[in-house]
Formats: sequence, structure tokens, C-alpha cells
Amino acid sequence: MADPRVRHFQEELEHLMARLLEMGGLAEEHVRVAVQALVDRDVRLIDKVLGGDAAINRLHVEIDDRCVKLLALHQPMAVDLRSIIAAVKINSDLERVGDLAVNIAEAVRRYLQHPPGRELTDIPGMADLAQGMLRDALDAFVRRDIELAQHVLNEDDALDALKTDMFRDLLSSMLADSATIEPSLDLILISRHLERIGDHATNVAEDVIFMVSAKDVRHQGI
Amino acid sequence: MADPRVRHFQEELEHLMARLLEMGGLAEEHVRVAVQALVDRDVRLIDKVLGGDAAINRLHVEIDDRCVKLLALHQPMAVDLRSIIAAVKINSDLERVGDLAVNIAEAVRRYLQHPPGRELTDIPGMADLAQGMLRDALDAFVRRDIELAQHVLNEDDALDALKTDMFRDLLSSMLADSATIEPSLDLILISRHLERIGDHATNVAEDVIFMVSAKDVRHQGI
Repeated sequence: MADPRVRHFQEELEHLMARLLEMGGLAEEHVRVAVQALVDRDVRLIDKVLGGDAAINRLHVEIDDRCVKLLALHQPMAVDLRSIIAAVKINSDLERVGDLAVNIAEAVRRYLQHPPGRELTDIPGMADLAQGMLRDALDAFVRRDIELAQHVLNEDDALDALKTDMFRDLLSSMLADSATIEPSLDLILISRHLERIGDHATNVAEDVIFMVSAKDVRHQGI
Repeated sequence: MADPRVRHFQEELEHLMARLLEMGGLAEEHVRVAVQALVDRDVRLIDKVLGGDAAINRLHVEIDDRCVKLLALHQPMAVDLRSIIAAVKINSDLERVGDLAVNIAEAVRRYLQHPPGRELTDIPGMADLAQGMLRDALDAFVRRDIELAQHVLNEDDALDALKTDMFRDLLSSMLADSATIEPSLDLILISRHLERIGDHATNVAEDVIFMVSAKDVRHQGI
């Protein structure tokens, strides 16, 4: 039978992973709801995002605490140590995604003060892409899947391209019709927030590669 | 005489702090140069920022590596453990500040394609404030100075207020004169990047408070 101390560590590590996934799920849900508020022009959804941020912040503190305790009590080595370091970083990234969902919600609130316009945008497309990157990056972390992490890094170019297209279209509409300046500005800011969510997913993917490939280097006896 | 293992750990920790300060100094310098490019309308300074990012990225990898090695070899406890966890997080924040300096430089390049305008801005004021916050937050980390960290948190409101004022002024000029739309947009984006640098300084300050106050909690026997 396994050493109970080792078994206990593995259980605690799995618990940590589960909490990180829970936090990732919450952050992703907030982004989804904030964008839904824009699509449905539904201000009640904005309050849902703003009201839900405290839960993410509580998880942020709890996960940091779990990481420090795991390091202090079990003094893990090699890939276990790197997994916990990665968890600390990923925890910060997910908290920022929660903040960005709040920023999106605030921009949506301003945007909805204007009558419906015909600004060309693909905010839902950008949001889908960014959320998918975040989900894949967290899956890659839990499964220590370096190929999936690499896939996330590749997706980032597509997100940047969508942002650049949107920016050009929105700028054209602002130049053509000054009534669209204010709402277009908010859409530009929302697209930047979504781009940053993609950046956080990229950070997570990079942490996965760092975690796994450092293990490989050690396996080569360096 | 002190245990050589302990002495070695303290030396390594000081070395880590020195490298973090070096990285902070580089990141701050890049922000300064990017804003100087705007003020002096000097495109050569932009290339200096873009070309210098590799040095920050190398330090980022090196500092992460030092943190993992310190944890693996010395298995520190209490405030020493928390200091290294904080260093991992601060390292990420400083790398993002370097990225934001690059983003500012890119926006300045676009901005300088337009003839000099009279857009009302206080970009240099925002930059001074954000850089000061970053410097103070790093000082607070090295000195474990919770009061200075709290001071940084208070400064963030002033930075947000500057950003909000600038946004209102720039929006007015865009609405009044469509020739100012493109350059004003870039100034809005630059002010957002500076606001985010303030957010990173705030993160560092929060890490300092977490690091120091968690020690206090343990001293109370919890």
C-alpha cells in the first residue's frame, strides 16, 4: 500500500486542481454572461456578473492558501513542485479573467445606453474563441497535455486577427458617422478585454509547457 | 556561526530579490522610454523599447527558475516560503509591465503617423504615477514594508481618476473633430496600458501584504 503521506499529498493536489477548475469555470461563465448581456441587451445580466465577482475572489485566496500549505507540509519535488508553482500563477490569471468579465460588463452597461446601432462586430465570435482557449488551457494543465497547450498558443493568432478586423471596421464607422463614436469605443474596449482573456489562456498554456518540459529535462539527467 | 545551509539560503534569496529589482528597473525604464517617444515624437525610442523586451523575457525565465530551485533545495517555511511565492507572482507582473511598455510603444508609433494635434492629455502624469507605484511596490517587497504597500494601493484611485478625466477629454475632442478620432483612440489605449501598469503595481503591493500579514497570523499561533 502507498505511503499515507504520499497518498494524502496526491489527494490534496487533486483537490487543488478541482478548485482551480471550479474557479476557471466561474470566470468563464462570467465572461459568457457579460457577452450575453451585450447580445440580448439585458442589463440584469450585468448585475449578475458584478455580483458574482466576490466568489471568484474568495476562491483566489483559498487556492493561494492551499498552494502555500501544500508546499510547507509536503515539500514536493520535481513535477509536483512545478505543478503547484503553476497553480499559483494560473490562480492569478483566472482572477484577472474574472476582473476582465467585470470590465466587459461595465463597458456593456455604457454601450446599452445608446440605441441599437449597426456597428459591425464579432464580439460573440471573439468571446467563444477566448473561452475555448481558457477551457483548453485548463484541461491541458490538469491532464499535463503539452500538445493541447501548444494548440492554445496557436489559437491566440486567430483571436488577435479577429480583434484587428473589428478595430478596423469600428474605426471606419466612427469616421463615417460621429453618432457611432461612443458605442464603437466601448466595443473596441470589450474586444481588448477579450484579447486579454486570450492572453491569460496563453499564460496558462505556457505554464503547462514549463511544468511538463522541465520534467523532461530532469529526466534527461540535467 | 550560522548554519551554512541557512546562510546559503539567505544569500540566494537576496540574489533573487536583486534580480527581481533589476527586472523591475528594466520594465520601468521601458515604460519611461515609450512615453518619452510620445513626448519627443522620437520614433527611434520606439525601436529601443521593442528591442529591449528580450532581456526582460530572459530575466523572467531565470527568476522563475531561481524560485523553483530555492523551493526544491531549501524547502523554506513561513515568511521565507511566502516570499518566494510572492516572487513568482511579482515576476509575472513585471513581465506583463514589459509587455505593456511594448504595447505603448506600438500605439505611439501609430499616433506619430498623425500630425501634432492639440488633444488634451496627461499621459506623462499618468506614466509618472504608474512608475512611482511600481517602484514603491518593489521597495515594499524588498523591505517587507506593509505601510508602503498600503500607500501603493491608495495611489491606484488617483491613477484611475486621471484615466477617467483623459477619457472624457479625448472623447469630447473626437466628437468635436473627426480628424482627432484616430490619434485620440491611440491616446485612450495608451492611458489604459498605463492604468494596467498601476494594476500590476497594486498586485505586487497586495502580495507584500499577504506575505507579511500571513506571517503575523502564524505568530498568533493559528
